[in-house]
Amino acid sequence: MRVALIQQKFHQNKKATIERTLSLIESAPEAELVVLQELHQGPYFCQNENPLNFALANEFSTDVEFWRWVSEEKEIVLVASLFEERAPGLYHNTAVVFDKGKIAGKYRKMHIPDDPGFYEKFYFTPGDLGFEPIDTSVGRLGVLVCWDQWFPEAARIMTLKGAQILIYPTAIGWFDEDSDEEKERQLDAWITIQRSHAIANGLPLVSVNRVGFEKDPSGCLEGIRFWGNSFACGAQGEILAQATEQQEIALQVEISFERIKQVRDIWPFLRDRRIDAYQALLQRYCE
Amino acid sequence: MRVALIQQKFHQNKKATIERTLSLIESAPEAELVVLQELHQGPYFCQNENPLNFALANEFSTDVEFWRWVSEEKEIVLVASLFEERAPGLYHNTAVVFDKGKIAGKYRKMHIPDDPGFYEKFYFTPGDLGFEPIDTSVGRLGVLVCWDQWFPEAARIMTLKGAQILIYPTAIGWFDEDSDEEKERQLDAWITIQRSHAIANGLPLVSVNRVGFEKDPSGCLEGIRFWGNSFACGAQGEILAQATEQQEIALQVEISFERIKQVRDIWPFLRDRRIDAYQALLQRYCE
Repeated sequence: MRVALIQQKFHQNKKATIERTLSLIESAPEAELVVLQELHQGPYFCQNENPLNFALANEFSTDVEFWRWVSEEKEIVLVASLFEERAPGLYHNTAVVFDKGKIAGKYRKMHIPDDPGFYEKFYFTPGDLGFEPIDTSVGRLGVLVCWDQWFPEAARIMTLKGAQILIYPTAIGWFDEDSDEEKERQLDAWITIQRSHAIANGLPLVSVNRVGFEKDPSGCLEGIRFWGNSFACGAQGEILAQATEQQEIALQVEISFERIKQVRDIWPFLRDRRIDAYQALLQRYCE
Repeated sequence: MRVALIQQKFHQNKKATIERTLSLIESAPEAELVVLQELHQGPYFCQNENPLNFALANEFSTDVEFWRWVSEEKEIVLVASLFEERAPGLYHNTAVVFDKGKIAGKYRKMHIPDDPGFYEKFYFTPGDLGFEPIDTSVGRLGVLVCWDQWFPEAARIMTLKGAQILIYPTAIGWFDEDSDEEKERQLDAWITIQRSHAIANGLPLVSVNRVGFEKDPSGCLEGIRFWGNSFACGAQGEILAQATEQQEIALQVEISFERIKQVRDIWPFLRDRRIDAYQALLQRYCE
């Protein structure tokens, strides 16, 4: 299966940003599965807490219809990441999966971060759809979103429910004021934790991150320099393709689901899980 | 805290092997915590299924007394890895932790591998002590063993129970007939999955592996070339020290528990776990 990871900047407004997305999709005409980055239609608006930003979710129905149409036109399976208004005052960070003109399913981000510059708990209600893979014509997709990537539990449950690939639309970057060493540790940790999900679960994985510098509109912080480095790895965690930290690109990679069984048959981790001894995983902490 | 990771070969018999261990421990006189590799007193005897090998567990009580004495003499906390005869026909792969002359606790390997050359399910009953950290004068140690390292669940539970460091005595290596690419993927996956436990849990981690080539006594396979690469990493998964693939060494590293809180306060993963949505982790598979 040919997959395209669309890594791009925010281009000052929604229209120009979507045009860039479409041109990148067109640059990968052989892709059967196209994955877009987190909240790809606009800026990463969670740098401050501003109620006016909820207006960005007003067009959710229109957005869904637009990307459905794109998936039909291009005859692709498409993973989009949208700001969902579910009811007045109730919003989600939602990945919607389209399959050649049909809505295949959606995933509402389950783990919501909140730290300086990433004030997502203000905007997003934690997902209530659980960790459910989405069936499509190219396979069963384990779609998770950004902060989910730090939680082995999420990847494991997707695996136990039969996902054939783990997919992470993401928006993560550096603060310029951090040291080079700290930046290196952060990027390396971000790649390592995701590769580990591929290894632990014997699954391929793709992660799509944005690039470019986006100013903090509040002026409290300088802004975020999104670090790109979108990548795909195989079921042993081996890197198959990786973008740079600045380029806009439709990163293309060939992924084989046959490797899942090959790898799991030599690394049979699923056989040996001690489900009789994992109850503590359902606790917050064990004093 | 100064930690020493004792990476060594099997030296043809138990006596010579222990002498080598002691001389390596003596080469690191400032170490407060010393970690030995998996089944460090002898060969990695699980390359074939031979009932005569159960005799290696007969001296468990004597072994425990010996390593207790070593911990007292050297005034160290010592993590040993022994073959435990619990009752006739009932054996465990057991890590015993000694604290300056006292037995601090033990951990019986919970996840037991079994694949060509690593026939552990024949020898070891899966542990029944759960994932319980062991309190010592240098801190609360999350001791796990080898195959456990592939299971994020084990590291997570140790974390939830207050472990301040993850410790993995290990015996893992290559088959010479594998391609260089496969060998590289295996070693890289082994390092990556363990670093990911440090990252996901905000904990330092040490992993101690053996070196040297050990022939398959049955002649069915050629044998295992243990790949060394014992390492320590910090709470962001950053490598602090790493041995080569062949050297015998007391690899020394300084580890700070203060980093745990520093890292977790900026990467608050424990705050955001969705314990309301993790029930599937207690299932074998979800059809």
